[in-house]
Amino acid sequence: MFLPILFTISLLFSSSHASVLDFCVADPSLPDGPAGFSCKKPAKVTVDDFVYHGLGIPGNTSNLIKAAVTTAFAPQFPGVNGLGISMLRLDLAVGGVVPIHTHPGGSEIVFVSEGTICAGFISSSANTVYIKTLYKGDVMVFPQGLLHFQFNSGNTPALAIVGFNSPSPGLQLLDYALFANNLPSEIVEKVTFLDEAQVKKLKAVLGGTG
Amino acid sequence: MFLPILFTISLLFSSSHASVLDFCVADPSLPDGPAGFSCKKPAKVTVDDFVYHGLGIPGNTSNLIKAAVTTAFAPQFPGVNGLGISMLRLDLAVGGVVPIHTHPGGSEIVFVSEGTICAGFISSSANTVYIKTLYKGDVMVFPQGLLHFQFNSGNTPALAIVGFNSPSPGLQLLDYALFANNLPSEIVEKVTFLDEAQVKKLKAVLGGTG
Amino acid sequence: MFLPILFTISLLFSSSHASVLDFCVADPSLPDGPAGFSCKKPAKVTVDDFVYHGLGIPGNTSNLIKAAVTTAFAPQFPGVNGLGISMLRLDLAVGGVVPIHTHPGGSEIVFVSEGTICAGFISSSANTVYIKTLYKGDVMVFPQGLLHFQFNSGNTPALAIVGFNSPSPGLQLLDYALFANNLPSEIVEKVTFLDEAQVKKLKAVLGGTG
Amino acid sequence: MFLPILFTISLLFSSSHASVLDFCVADPSLPDGPAGFSCKKPAKVTVDDFVYHGLGIPGNTSNLIKAAVTTAFAPQFPGVNGLGISMLRLDLAVGGVVPIHTHPGGSEIVFVSEGTICAGFISSSANTVYIKTLYKGDVMVFPQGLLHFQFNSGNTPALAIVGFNSPSPGLQLLDYALFANNLPSEIVEKVTFLDEAQVKKLKAVLGGTG
Amino acid sequence: MFLPILFTISLLFSSSHASVLDFCVADPSLPDGPAGFSCKKPAKVTVDDFVYHGLGIPGNTSNLIKAAVTTAFAPQFPGVNGLGISMLRLDLAVGGVVPIHTHPGGSEIVFVSEGTICAGFISSSANTVYIKTLYKGDVMVFPQGLLHFQFNSGNTPALAIVGFNSPSPGLQLLDYALFANNLPSEIVEKVTFLDEAQVKKLKAVLGGTG
Amino acid sequence: MFLPILFTISLLFSSSHASVLDFCVADPSLPDGPAGFSCKKPAKVTVDDFVYHGLGIPGNTSNLIKAAVTTAFAPQFPGVNGLGISMLRLDLAVGGVVPIHTHPGGSEIVFVSEGTICAGFISSSANTVYIKTLYKGDVMVFPQGLLHFQFNSGNTPALAIVGFNSPSPGLQLLDYALFANNLPSEIVEKVTFLDEAQVKKLKAVLGGTG
Repeated sequence: MFLPILFTISLLFSSSHASVLDFCVADPSLPDGPAGFSCKKPAKVTVDDFVYHGLGIPGNTSNLIKAAVTTAFAPQFPGVNGLGISMLRLDLAVGGVVPIHTHPGGSEIVFVSEGTICAGFISSSANTVYIKTLYKGDVMVFPQGLLHFQFNSGNTPALAIVGFNSPSPGLQLLDYALFANNLPSEIVEKVTFLDEAQVKKLKAVLGGTG
Repeated sequence: MFLPILFTISLLFSSSHASVLDFCVADPSLPDGPAGFSCKKPAKVTVDDFVYHGLGIPGNTSNLIKAAVTTAFAPQFPGVNGLGISMLRLDLAVGGVVPIHTHPGGSEIVFVSEGTICAGFISSSANTVYIKTLYKGDVMVFPQGLLHFQFNSGNTPALAIVGFNSPSPGLQLLDYALFANNLPSEIVEKVTFLDEAQVKKLKAVLGGTG
Repeated sequence: MFLPILFTISLLFSSSHASVLDFCVADPSLPDGPAGFSCKKPAKVTVDDFVYHGLGIPGNTSNLIKAAVTTAFAPQFPGVNGLGISMLRLDLAVGGVVPIHTHPGGSEIVFVSEGTICAGFISSSANTVYIKTLYKGDVMVFPQGLLHFQFNSGNTPALAIVGFNSPSPGLQLLDYALFANNLPSEIVEKVTFLDEAQVKKLKAVLGGTG
Repeated sequence: MFLPILFTISLLFSSSHASVLDFCVADPSLPDGPAGFSCKKPAKVTVDDFVYHGLGIPGNTSNLIKAAVTTAFAPQFPGVNGLGISMLRLDLAVGGVVPIHTHPGGSEIVFVSEGTICAGFISSSANTVYIKTLYKGDVMVFPQGLLHFQFNSGNTPALAIVGFNSPSPGLQLLDYALFANNLPSEIVEKVTFLDEAQVKKLKAVLGGTG
Repeated sequence: MFLPILFTISLLFSSSHASVLDFCVADPSLPDGPAGFSCKKPAKVTVDDFVYHGLGIPGNTSNLIKAAVTTAFAPQFPGVNGLGISMLRLDLAVGGVVPIHTHPGGSEIVFVSEGTICAGFISSSANTVYIKTLYKGDVMVFPQGLLHFQFNSGNTPALAIVGFNSPSPGLQLLDYALFANNLPSEIVEKVTFLDEAQVKKLKAVLGGTG
Repeated sequence: MFLPILFTISLLFSSSHASVLDFCVADPSLPDGPAGFSCKKPAKVTVDDFVYHGLGIPGNTSNLIKAAVTTAFAPQFPGVNGLGISMLRLDLAVGGVVPIHTHPGGSEIVFVSEGTICAGFISSSANTVYIKTLYKGDVMVFPQGLLHFQFNSGNTPALAIVGFNSPSPGLQLLDYALFANNLPSEIVEKVTFLDEAQVKKLKAVLGGTG
C-alpha cells in the first residue's frame, strides 16, 4: 500500500512565492517595472484572473470609421502579465476601417472569424506592400513594429480575433499620433510633407491643437 | 516642386538581405537552427507567405475523442518563422475532449468562438487546479509548460481559436507520450504509479509497444 | 609615482543601485514581478547571499518512492534571483524513482555523482523516447518543458547534481498534478483515458479529493 | 620555474567553432535565419571585420530634405551581427529634416555631435508628444517602435551619432511607406483619412504608383 | 464631416499604466528588480526624462591616466531604464588610457568623434588579439564580456561616443578589481601569477588593502 | 473499445522538422549562426546526442597550477546546442588554482563535490570582493561576466561540478588573454599598469610574443 508521504521535495513547497514559478497575475496597485506589473499574492489568485469576458461583447462600431477594437492586454486582463501573450477582438461594420497603425511591442496574428477583410503591411527595407483579401477562416501575420491596416472589404460585418506575443503590445494609430495631440502643425507638416490645409483639417477632426 | 531624390539613406538599401530587417519566412529546404528555420530569399517572398488558409477548414472530429487540432505553426505556416507567434484551431464535437497536455515552448491564449468549453490548468507550485467553463467570447490564458486540458461541456459543437507566443510551441499529449511509443510498460508503471493492467490497456489502444 | 586619482568615472559610482549592474539578490519581503523577486539593497548583500549549504545535506529518502529532491531555486537561494540559473540535488535510494514530470520554465542538465540512474525524456513531435542508463560521471540534458523521469537502476544509492537555466524552473510532477488536488475524478478520467478505479486509487494515495 | 603546460582545459580548444563562443561575423553568402546572418569561419575573421569606416564620411545632404542617414547595420558592418548593437550617423544641413519614422526592431539613442536638433517621439498610449531642442552634447532616447523625428533647428549643419540595440533595427519612413510604392491611392486615403489630392501629390513626388 | 468619435478602442485607454506599453522611466525610490528599476508614474514623466545633458561636458582628464568616462546609464539617465540601451563619452587626453576592462552586461560600439584611438579586444576561445588604430569617424564593436582597452595613440585629445545594448552594462576595470579592494595580496598573486612586489605596488597605488 | 484514430492533429506531424519543436542537436558540419549551431536532422538524432561521458573522467592536473577544466559545452556536447545550458567539471589537486577569469556569455553555479575550495568574485560597481571557503556540498553562484576564481584550500583533491546558463558560455582566463598571445608588451603594460619585467616574465611562461 502507498504511504501518505510519497516523495520528499525539501524546501520547494516552503515558499510563499509560488508566483515566481508559474505565473504573475498583475497587481496594478503595486509598482510596475520593465518586465510588467508586480504579481498578485498567489493566495489571492483565482481562476477568474486567467479568464476574460470582454472579448465576447461586440465593440460599438457606431463611429465614423465603423470599427471597434476591444483589447485583452495586461491592464484589462491581469492574467497575461508576464506571460508574453494577449488578444483583442476587431469589429468592422460594413465599410469599417482600422486606420494604419503599428504595435511597437509585438508581432500580430489575425484570424478572420466572420466576413471579409482586406489587410496589408508595408516592409521597412524596400517599402514593399503585402496586401491580401482575407476570407472567413484565413490567418495573416504582421511582423513586429511595421505599419499595417485592415478594412472590411465585404458586404457584411466582419469580426477578427487577433493574437499578440506580448501582454502589452501597444497600439499606435498614425492619425492619432499626428493629429490628436498638441504637436504643432508646422512640425507635422515638416516631418510628413503634408500640406498645411490637410494637417489643419485632420487636427480639427481629431481634436488636436497647435 | 519636390525632387526625385528625397532623402539619402546610404548603404541601407544596398543589402539584398531584407529578411534580416523585418521578417524571416521559413525555407525548410535549408538548415534550421535554434532560432528556427533559415529565411527564404526576400525576392521570392510574397504576401501568400504571410497568409494561411488551413484554419478555415473544420478539423475532422470523427475520431474517438471527437476533437481535432489544426495548427498554423512554422512548419505549416512559414510566415510566422522568427516572429514568435502562431495559432491553431480547435474543433470539439459534442462530447469532444483535448486530453491533458503541455506546450513546452510557449504560453497559450484561447478564444471560444462557438459553443461551451470547460478548460483548466494545474499550477506546478501547489498543484492548484484552475478550471472554468468558458462560453462563446470568453478568453483563457494557460502559462507556459503547464498541464492543461479542454473539453466540450455543452450540447453543440465548439470551436476555439488559440494563440501562442512561439512559432513552434510544441504539443505534448500525455497519453501519446506515455502509451504511444516503445517506452517499456514496466518503466511507465514505475514513473507513473499506474497499474500494469491500465498501462497495457492504453498501450494497446494507442499502438504502443514494450 | 602614481596618484590617488587614477581615473575619473563620472557619475558611475554615485549610484546606490549597484544591484542593477551585477546581480539582484532576492528580497522576498518586497513585491515580485515577472522577472523575479525585487532586489535586496546592495549595502546589505554579503557573500553568504551567493552561497547555499542546503545541497550538502542528503535528502530524506525514507518515503514510498525512496527519492528526495532538494532545490537551490530562488526562493531558497536568493543569490540566483535574476541570474537565470539554479541547481538541485537528487537522492535516489536503491529502488528510488523520480516520477515523470516537467520543468515548465527551464532546461535541465544532470550529472550523476554516485550510482547508476536510468533517465529518459519523450519528445513532443513524434513521442520518441530517449532513454539511457547513466553511470557515475555521465551527463544528460533534458529540453525545456518535456516529460522526463529518472530512477535508480543500480544496487547502491545514487546522487545526481542537476543544473537549470532558470532561477525558478518549476517542477510539475504528473501524479501530483492529476491526483493530489481537487480536480474531479470524472475530469481526470476524461482527459487522461484512465479508468475510474485507477484514478480513485491514486487519488486516495496522494490525498486528492473529488 | 613555470612549465609550458600551465593549465589543462580539456576539449575546449578542440573546437573549430570559436564563433559560437564570442562573436558571429556575418557571412552573407550563407543562409540567414531569425537571429541574423550565419557566421564567417573564425579562421577568416580579422580585426577589420569589427571596424567600420563608413560613418566617417559625411552623408550627401544635397537632396530635398537636406538630410542623410548612413548606417552601420549588420548588412554593411558584418561584425555587429549577433551582438545586438549597431550605429548610424545622421547629417542634417541647415533646414534638414528626418521625416517621421519608426525602427521596428530596436530602441534608439541619439548623441548630438554638432549643431542643434529638434527631436520628438509620440507615445502610443495617450499620443503624448515628447519633444525637445537638443544642443551639442545632449542625448535623447527613443523607445522601440514609436514614431519619431529629428530636424535641424539651428543655423549650422548638425551631426548626430545614433546607437541602436539591434544589429538590424530597420527604418520605416512614413512617407516612403505610404507614397513610394504601389499601394493604391484609394487604400492610402481610406487608412490615413488623407484627401485624394494630397495622396496623389505625394505619390507623384515619391514615385509611387496606383 | 468627421465626427468627434472617430474610433472606439474599448478599455485600452482606461489604463493608468501607460508605462507598461511604451517605456519605464526609472524611479530609484521604488524597489528595483532583475529587469531594472521600477517605473515612474506616467503622469509624472516629461520629455526631460528622455534627455540627458551630462555627455556634453568633457570629462576631467587631470588624473594619472589622462582619461575620463562619463556614463549615461540608467542610474544617471532614468529614461533608458527598460529600453536595453545606453551611452557614455570617453575623453582621452594626449597619452590617455582606458585600462583593460569588461562590460559584464552588454556589447559595446565605439565611434571616434575626435582624435586617434588605438583599441583592441581579446577573444576568449583562442586568446586572439583584435587591435586597430581608429581615426575620426571610425567605428569598432566589442563583443559582450570580453577584455578590451582603448588608448590615445595620437598627438591631440580624443573623444569617443560609445553605445551599449543595455541600460546598465556595468564596467569592470581589471586594476580596480584586483588592486583597489581588500582581496588579500596572496590570493591576488595566486590567481594572477603576478609577483608579490608587483601586487603590493599596485595595491598601494590604488588604495587596496590586504 | 478505443479506435486506432484517437485524435486528429492535422498537419502537425507532417513536418520533418521536429527539431524546431523540442531541441536542436548541433551539426557542426553546417553553418552556425548567432543562436548556435545548425540542427542535426531529427531522424539522425539518438539518445547518445543528449548524453555526454567526458565529465566522468578526472582531468589531468599534472600541470603547473594543478588544475583541470573539462567542458561539456556545445562544441563537445551537441545536445545542449540551443537549450541554453551546459556543464563542466573542475579538478583541483592539492594546491590547485583556477586563475582569475570570466565567462562572457553566462552565469555560473558551482557545486563542491569533493574537498574544500576557496572561491570569490568581484563586483563591477564597487569592486567589492565576495569570497568564501566552500565545503563539500556547498553551492556558490557567480554573476555573468564578472572576474572570479577558485582554488583548493584544503589538504585533499577537490572536485566541483559547474553549471552554466548558456551552451557556450566562453572562458576568458586573464593570464592567457594578457600573456599568451602577440599583444605587444608595451600595450599590456599601458593597459594594466604592470611593470615591464612582470609582463615579460609572464609572456615567457605562457608563450606570448611581442
